[in-house]
Amino acid sequence: MADKLRYSITLRLYGEEKIFGPGIAELLEKVDEYHSLRRATMAMGMAYSKAWSIIKTAEQSLSFPLLISKTGGRGGGGAELSEPGRRFLQAYRTFERTVHDFADEIFEDMFGQEEE
Amino acid sequence: MADKLRYSITLRLYGEEKIFGPGIAELLEKVDEYHSLRRATMAMGMAYSKAWSIIKTAEQSLSFPLLISKTGGRGGGGAELSEPGRRFLQAYRTFERTVHDFADEIFEDMFGQEEE
Repeated sequence: MADKLRYSITLRLYGEEKIFGPGIAELLEKVDEYHSLRRATMAMGMAYSKAWSIIKTAEQSLSFPLLISKTGGRGGGGAELSEPGRRFLQAYRTFERTVHDFADEIFEDMFGQEEE
Repeated sequence: MADKLRYSITLRLYGEEKIFGPGIAELLEKVDEYHSLRRATMAMGMAYSKAWSIIKTAEQSLSFPLLISKTGGRGGGGAELSEPGRRFLQAYRTFERTVHDFADEIFEDMFGQEEE
């Protein structure tokens, strides 16, 4: 085999439509880091309107808010993860990591090479 | 939760670049069914030139042929899976199924709902 073989796993969650995946997970993590949805989108190079739409679609399907707005204060407001939003994000990341750890083992068995 | 939650897993294999994923796996399965790359692409609604490019890129990275051409005979030739191509496809599907079976169990534990 010419190239060293690696793999990737993409996990997505669906209700009636797509709810959650790597993009929104990273977006929420950036909000947690920057305390602002706008700064999170800038860090990711994502259009603010797209981020807003992704979050609203997910919130409707999940029936709980992912973000809470903070008004006033230095910088004139911002956003934080809601508690259910934080728990859901953690559940997604745990699910992803657990599947990944399992896949690492069988990938090596089956393809004889390790994931990068 | 408003919507019943489901998940999807996408597994991709990489060398220097992307080699293998759901699209090429389905394409190879259709070739196996129709004994023709052209008929496989028609069944998938995929451009023949795109299918050709995907397969050539994968073959270069893997350093073995995925397809073998059959010339002559009724219909004037066609394509079949090569033996290493068939084994690789089977390994990918087994990897995918094994990861999926594992993920089914923990998904139910974590999100309390079954995959559709």
